[in-house]
Amino acid sequence: VFLYIPAGPAVDQVIDGLAEKLEPGDIIVDGGNSYWGDSIRRYRRVRDQGRQFVDLGTSGGVSGARNGACFMAGGEAPAIQRLEPILTKLAVDGGYVHAGPPGAGHFVKLVHNGIEFGMLQAIGEGVNLLESYRDQLNTADVLRCWRFGSVIRSWLVDLMEEAYRTNGGLEKIPAFVEDTGEVNWLVDDALHMEVPIPVIAQAVMQLLASRDDQKYWARAIATMRHGFGGHPFGPSEPVAQERREGRIGGFLRE
Amino acid sequence: VFLYIPAGPAVDQVIDGLAEKLEPGDIIVDGGNSYWGDSIRRYRRVRDQGRQFVDLGTSGGVSGARNGACFMAGGEAPAIQRLEPILTKLAVDGGYVHAGPPGAGHFVKLVHNGIEFGMLQAIGEGVNLLESYRDQLNTADVLRCWRFGSVIRSWLVDLMEEAYRTNGGLEKIPAFVEDTGEVNWLVDDALHMEVPIPVIAQAVMQLLASRDDQKYWARAIATMRHGFGGHPFGPSEPVAQERREGRIGGFLRE
Amino acid sequence: VFLYIPAGPAVDQVIDGLAEKLEPGDIIVDGGNSYWGDSIRRYRRVRDQGRQFVDLGTSGGVSGARNGACFMAGGEAPAIQRLEPILTKLAVDGGYVHAGPPGAGHFVKLVHNGIEFGMLQAIGEGVNLLESYRDQLNTADVLRCWRFGSVIRSWLVDLMEEAYRTNGGLEKIPAFVEDTGEVNWLVDDALHMEVPIPVIAQAVMQLLASRDDQKYWARAIATMRHGFGGHPFGPSEPVAQERREGRIGGFLRE
Amino acid sequence: VFLYIPAGPAVDQVIDGLAEKLEPGDIIVDGGNSYWGDSIRRYRRVRDQGRQFVDLGTSGGVSGARNGACFMAGGEAPAIQRLEPILTKLAVDGGYVHAGPPGAGHFVKLVHNGIEFGMLQAIGEGVNLLESYRDQLNTADVLRCWRFGSVIRSWLVDLMEEAYRTNGGLEKIPAFVEDTGEVNWLVDDALHMEVPIPVIAQAVMQLLASRDDQKYWARAIATMRHGFGGHPFGPSEPVAQERREGRIGGFLRE
Repeated sequence: VFLYIPAGPAVDQVIDGLAEKLEPGDIIVDGGNSYWGDSIRRYRRVRDQGRQFVDLGTSGGVSGARNGACFMAGGEAPAIQRLEPILTKLAVDGGYVHAGPPGAGHFVKLVHNGIEFGMLQAIGEGVNLLESYRDQLNTADVLRCWRFGSVIRSWLVDLMEEAYRTNGGLEKIPAFVEDTGEVNWLVDDALHMEVPIPVIAQAVMQLLASRDDQKYWARAIATMRHGFGGHPFGPSEPVAQERREGRIGGFLRE
Repeated sequence: VFLYIPAGPAVDQVIDGLAEKLEPGDIIVDGGNSYWGDSIRRYRRVRDQGRQFVDLGTSGGVSGARNGACFMAGGEAPAIQRLEPILTKLAVDGGYVHAGPPGAGHFVKLVHNGIEFGMLQAIGEGVNLLESYRDQLNTADVLRCWRFGSVIRSWLVDLMEEAYRTNGGLEKIPAFVEDTGEVNWLVDDALHMEVPIPVIAQAVMQLLASRDDQKYWARAIATMRHGFGGHPFGPSEPVAQERREGRIGGFLRE
Repeated sequence: VFLYIPAGPAVDQVIDGLAEKLEPGDIIVDGGNSYWGDSIRRYRRVRDQGRQFVDLGTSGGVSGARNGACFMAGGEAPAIQRLEPILTKLAVDGGYVHAGPPGAGHFVKLVHNGIEFGMLQAIGEGVNLLESYRDQLNTADVLRCWRFGSVIRSWLVDLMEEAYRTNGGLEKIPAFVEDTGEVNWLVDDALHMEVPIPVIAQAVMQLLASRDDQKYWARAIATMRHGFGGHPFGPSEPVAQERREGRIGGFLRE
Repeated sequence: VFLYIPAGPAVDQVIDGLAEKLEPGDIIVDGGNSYWGDSIRRYRRVRDQGRQFVDLGTSGGVSGARNGACFMAGGEAPAIQRLEPILTKLAVDGGYVHAGPPGAGHFVKLVHNGIEFGMLQAIGEGVNLLESYRDQLNTADVLRCWRFGSVIRSWLVDLMEEAYRTNGGLEKIPAFVEDTGEVNWLVDDALHMEVPIPVIAQAVMQLLASRDDQKYWARAIATMRHGFGGHPFGPSEPVAQERREGRIGGFLRE
């Protein structure tokens, strides 16, 4: 039985409901984005009921579902071996791996998503730089060029180019990024595992920043700066003038 | 001669204008926020003209000017020794240091400003957390408490409390932080010196973020996410609902 | 009853053991670094047993215990009012605040610790810059100067100067920072609360980095760079030469 | 004339040497990693001498040179149009774009390199997480799986898998990343352009961190923490014990 339902207690409920209907040796496959710690727990419960459990991270999005996804499986060898033919077939031209013991499939998927967040933010910053250059650039064509032969060629750059071209730039797109919160788990895992992930953590912070229309931190800083230096509140024309003339903001280059 | 003028070519012009009027042995003191590399260059020119030059970083803001500032001097011993009585007197209860050879005064002041940026951002983030807690907090009183006996007691926390109380919170303060750009030099210096300064650099990035009302990076990420996952543009009510119920965004704690 | 024991299940055990010995109206005060979510849970259990519970964040370290600490209390008004005279007395010249309802004391303490981490890292980066300057600086005297009249004057700068002077610099100190993990909770809280805390999160990452002697991330990057550009493994003398001559690493300033 | 020489004054020398030998209408193409501001300056000088100048960012590394690189050209239309047939041919299956006016080619290449740094660091952090998981993972196979159908499929993930497999993991690779410093320019540009690039800047900081074997920042933090809390220097067995038992470092998950 393949489950593709949102992470959370609903997964437990469905597994409990299935348990009595399944026969010994049946395999429950959780293909959703469950937390790997939950998957280890579920594996144990299902195993104790005489059934098998596989956690199956799935990547590739909507197009992956059509043209070949990437499957990361965690579980014991016997269950995995029975699934393998199905997964290899479902993957089409995509990927498949038996990542490790129970939980490993969802952990590896979570790490994949963390890398994805870092890549998205890096590309987003790059596009921001292109949009802010002193001269008008042929941005859609630049993005297209990067798809072929460059070091950063990737599916995300492919998508960026297509989206940029389809939408005629970024002006009509809201500056707001929603997410479903799983990468928060990864930040927490990294803190437990004592693995520094500065860029992935920063990418998550930026998602929050995209949704932050109050910026209390900036208000707080503005008041302290006003307190010690008499720095003005809000944009200052003299400062902007100095910046335009290159006297502040670093060194003039030309 | 004490100069307190904005950093940039104006400092060179004033020094050139002074050179012919000064007598051998006269000291030119640049008390502004000049770049330390410029100060080394100016020291050499002034020295070659038979005068003396001291770069004098000055901290303490408006109140420092009244009640005692902190002076960080760079220069050769003879010039410094002649200045010392004056600086010690001007400092009142503030601080004074002969930091090192020419340029050291302005470098040390720049490092001071980098630390200041990191502290401001850390306090700003903390205040943001207080403002976002599930229950109403007595924020002004919390800030007051932190001024006495806490590990973070500092002049910036003093200023934060006073500002919070004076303004009745942060609602009326614009979420925009202006700066005069010197810490950009420090980021550049750190890259040259191969010294990682993740928090200071991040604090500078946040100043820029406070002035960024376009967020092209977020638009770019939103289009890529839409491309691979069909993620909706703008806030999503189902996602917000899941977040409120604690099913996403990490783990429920209670 | 004041509890000062490490956060975790031990706090629950002690509270359960006390419950039967205490009389109605007695107050249990948790002065340790418990997680505020646990404190809300404990408050409810203790209340249902007819006793009172106050969560009391305490800052100031060892010297605070002697000369006056900073107390941040969370709880209901009646319990707080009975404690207030004791806390005000214990605080001596330190601070005291009734921060808000149950849990607020420990939350506010946690935020305090997050700010502390950001400040520590900012100062650490600044000291690193001082140690890496081209000329020898009078670092201990610079730190002393910063204690008086500067914008960054603070207890942490006081401690930094004393430690630097006592230890004759930093050479004998291990480059390893241990912590007790509470600020990890704050990072997790911020993700739930959707509050971006880039600098505090980065400061936590740096603690982990200080303990990381494997740097698998750097090994991984080195292999990828070798893959696309033939970049050498390990330090490269030609590159170091270019760096020394200022041809790479940014722009020459002089 | 195509120049492929390291950025810096050598480029100016070669251009000056060529100027008198070239005929009107000849095109000098700088295919190296020059700073775009220098390229604008060189374009003007060459133009005033009656020759043409094109700045040509080139990506793709060693294999790109063989199988098709990605060319990003900046310059005026007439010069570009004459080059286009050559570049299109050289690109083979790679990319080519006329990015914009003089300077745009090198700017766009610089932005490409910034994105590359962010991607490298994100993948590096992900690999670090895989290496640090509680169970042994089939890491090489996981990386292979990510190459097909996943959201993060990219040339860098291809290279990562090949390198991991070739080297039998990462144990034999030095944890040291060298670079040639161009992305430092991009950080400086972003500060001038007021574009926040937190992840790219952080990735650059990490390169520096990989070369930092002194960690003065960590020593400084350790001394301050010792000062206020009596925190021990170096690893603490009681703390490590608490961490192993899950009492610190966040919440236990199982």
